[in-house]
Amino acid sequence: MRDSWATSRAAPPSDEDGPRGVPGVDLHLEPHGSGLRAGLMDALREAVRTGRLAPGTRLPSSRSLAVDLGVARNTVADAYAELVAEGWLTARQGSGTRVARRAEPRRPAPVPPRTRPARRGPAHSLLPGSPDLAAFPRARWLTAARRALTAAPHEAFAYTDPLGRIELRTVLADYLARSRGVYAAPERIVVCAGFIHGLMLLGRLLKARRVRAVAVESYGLDLHRNVLTEAGLRTPALAMDARGARTGELGDLPDARGVGAVLLTAAHQFPAGVALQPDRRAAAVDWARATDGLILEDDYDGEFRYDRQPVGALQGLDPERVVYLGTASKSLAPGLRLGWLVLPEELVGEVSAAKGGVDWASSSLDQLTLAEFIASGAYDRHVRSMRLRYRRRRDQLVAALADRAPGCRVTGIAAGLHAVVELPPGTERSVVEAAVWQGLAVYGMDRFRHPSVPPGPDALVVGYATPSDSAWPGALDALCRVLP
Amino acid sequence: MRDSWATSRAAPPSDEDGPRGVPGVDLHLEPHGSGLRAGLMDALREAVRTGRLAPGTRLPSSRSLAVDLGVARNTVADAYAELVAEGWLTARQGSGTRVARRAEPRRPAPVPPRTRPARRGPAHSLLPGSPDLAAFPRARWLTAARRALTAAPHEAFAYTDPLGRIELRTVLADYLARSRGVYAAPERIVVCAGFIHGLMLLGRLLKARRVRAVAVESYGLDLHRNVLTEAGLRTPALAMDARGARTGELGDLPDARGVGAVLLTAAHQFPAGVALQPDRRAAAVDWARATDGLILEDDYDGEFRYDRQPVGALQGLDPERVVYLGTASKSLAPGLRLGWLVLPEELVGEVSAAKGGVDWASSSLDQLTLAEFIASGAYDRHVRSMRLRYRRRRDQLVAALADRAPGCRVTGIAAGLHAVVELPPGTERSVVEAAVWQGLAVYGMDRFRHPSVPPGPDALVVGYATPSDSAWPGALDALCRVLP
Repeated sequence: MRDSWATSRAAPPSDEDGPRGVPGVDLHLEPHGSGLRAGLMDALREAVRTGRLAPGTRLPSSRSLAVDLGVARNTVADAYAELVAEGWLTARQGSGTRVARRAEPRRPAPVPPRTRPARRGPAHSLLPGSPDLAAFPRARWLTAARRALTAAPHEAFAYTDPLGRIELRTVLADYLARSRGVYAAPERIVVCAGFIHGLMLLGRLLKARRVRAVAVESYGLDLHRNVLTEAGLRTPALAMDARGARTGELGDLPDARGVGAVLLTAAHQFPAGVALQPDRRAAAVDWARATDGLILEDDYDGEFRYDRQPVGALQGLDPERVVYLGTASKSLAPGLRLGWLVLPEELVGEVSAAKGGVDWASSSLDQLTLAEFIASGAYDRHVRSMRLRYRRRRDQLVAALADRAPGCRVTGIAAGLHAVVELPPGTERSVVEAAVWQGLAVYGMDRFRHPSVPPGPDALVVGYATPSDSAWPGALDALCRVLP
Repeated sequence: MRDSWATSRAAPPSDEDGPRGVPGVDLHLEPHGSGLRAGLMDALREAVRTGRLAPGTRLPSSRSLAVDLGVARNTVADAYAELVAEGWLTARQGSGTRVARRAEPRRPAPVPPRTRPARRGPAHSLLPGSPDLAAFPRARWLTAARRALTAAPHEAFAYTDPLGRIELRTVLADYLARSRGVYAAPERIVVCAGFIHGLMLLGRLLKARRVRAVAVESYGLDLHRNVLTEAGLRTPALAMDARGARTGELGDLPDARGVGAVLLTAAHQFPAGVALQPDRRAAAVDWARATDGLILEDDYDGEFRYDRQPVGALQGLDPERVVYLGTASKSLAPGLRLGWLVLPEELVGEVSAAKGGVDWASSSLDQLTLAEFIASGAYDRHVRSMRLRYRRRRDQLVAALADRAPGCRVTGIAAGLHAVVELPPGTERSVVEAAVWQGLAVYGMDRFRHPSVPPGPDALVVGYATPSDSAWPGALDALCRVLP
């Protein structure tokens, strides 16, 4: 299509009062899109943008351009009028239609639409933090979407309640009580766009309450610490050991009076993999009660426990002191951007306000789809089936390492989507580098270390849920090859 | 199911070293959920929560409770062990299993899940800001979702690019160029969760750039001003007249040097309904160039223009000075939470960073569904069909008012989803109140006034797109009845 339309000559540019002696320019009109007028407008805009039609250039009269192009005069006149309204051209009595002085030329051509160059990814990934995306239950999710979309009231398409859809909150309250021992009522639940969004809302709330710091476990995700830092909060490190975070030391942190909350991965510490032991749970609650503090419980993979029933959430111990943060990112997929907060009653209003009045973050249709997905039992079935799949992989991991890397102990394997492979002292960095050469993406423990604590024992954090079933054996083999 | 399980007697509570003389309490175990152990755990948790089992209470031995309940002893022992792990109970050699001291009793009973009381809404709504939600193309949206879900690569379920899915950005670039004259390339587009999210991101960016204020039109949404205020920006008012915002006065605002951006509804001022005239567009661009300022173009309903082609977006005039904000909230539905920014090239990185590293806000599946919806032509067809529907309503509104309220002039009707009905001086408040009595929700112009400007002429802002087709005649009739 390009260059296929007639070209036409623009009259020479002129100064304010009359024609100047600049030679005429070809308009080279290149219509695209449908419709004569729209195509003409596009072509003129582009000619101005690229500088082919300079500011001040006088355009041919609509009559003569129409003749050149073989179109109705009105088509050209309308296009000119539109472009005058948009500010591209000016029309003045006696001076004709000209390119507006302000439409300054830009760089030669628009950036052509293109996809970004495909990055050569690693051949194998055992990075933690992702479920097996190939196992996303597409058909059943679509069934739920169809049911939800069919049943939704019209108001489901409107701006929605900042707490989230009541249908989802009702179903979640039941599910969380049943599967995680969470003391949940729909009125305490706020739907959010995944964990990060929930943590942003809480960071804002804590800052508004004049909290100065949130204690974090000495190993964790820098992304989470950054969210709190960006909310204006410090993130002092709480030491950990084999029984979990040393919550009894919350009162001994530097500037302890400014610490208004603690972020804990109680069911399955990320990344160390230990469960917070009963005395540590009790100490956390005691601290919160004594200091009017809050516990933020990041229950990211609480559904996945392999050798016995899941350990229930800490939240049930004191629902007025613990904020429970749950997510569909590990149980279904991060791409859904669906998470939930279960809040102390007195915080519901503040969190809702922190959302900005309307629920601007989460699609109502997605919320209704998830509600239908849980209510139909598809969620439980999916979690059960993934639990079996991940347990099998975990067992294969343990067996393979016992066989091929007997010097490396595996820990943190009772639950979750990752395990910790302990390494001989001083070898972590070289093992991670060796993995790169094997095309295997895997993180060392040190990557998750809080910057204020000294390096700990060498280890790898192995996300065994990440590969697809077909990619898993190759990834496991690559791992065994790089272990000492 | 409640109260249907056997009850059992707990042994009397005791102090640290032995039994105390408190009479035994009925456990009143009320299992819910499936599974004996899970049911027992739920029942025990609830008994502790509600205070029926006080801290320190000694529980019956697992053997005797198992006999009472007629279940296997292991079931009870496992349940006790789980609850010890969760911190609800303590187990000590020689002292048996007791309710943990820390699990302090809470208020009598959990809040029962309930939907919020149905608010009696008005019989008719002509509030602006919403499309006809009953016309949401459910079947075609679902078709697009099915296609998108079927075709999506596995990585679509992962954490995604903070710019948004490339598939959507590519399709949007084409659509925006074609329908709105926007100079768009996928690399300049950032997908966001609707306009508010986009404005939050920009507010954060401007604040980080040490901008102190964003000029806003003297009539607009307080929600938008609040987003900017919460980002730490002042929002001085820019005067308006029948040609739109008086952008030539941007340099004369108080503390003009701190004003780093201006928020404009150029295609169809909200709520006044005028289009920003060419000279005003030029003045805005001139100001931005002279002061290194930014224009934030809120193109909320640019697709809906009735009597001629839509006026193209201001953005095309200077893509390096104008941030274009578009949304699916008016063209499809607010409940989708999908919007987009088209950014000056140099800002893309900053906005992406302001999103926090991952796109935590927008579901990948929704983005792919919208991409498919646009690419298949369904979006264009929907917009065309809604344009016809809204134009018909607008014509009916104008005709009805000419007939039944000839003293009230209608303006702002060339485009958009609302019109302004001018009222005799001093009657706005009484008309809005009369509307309440008629069961008609409608806003007066004054509701949108910037607090720093004096009250303007009396008028109603009539959102004629809001009702469903079946509700529209009644709403129009109610409106005519309350007009003077």
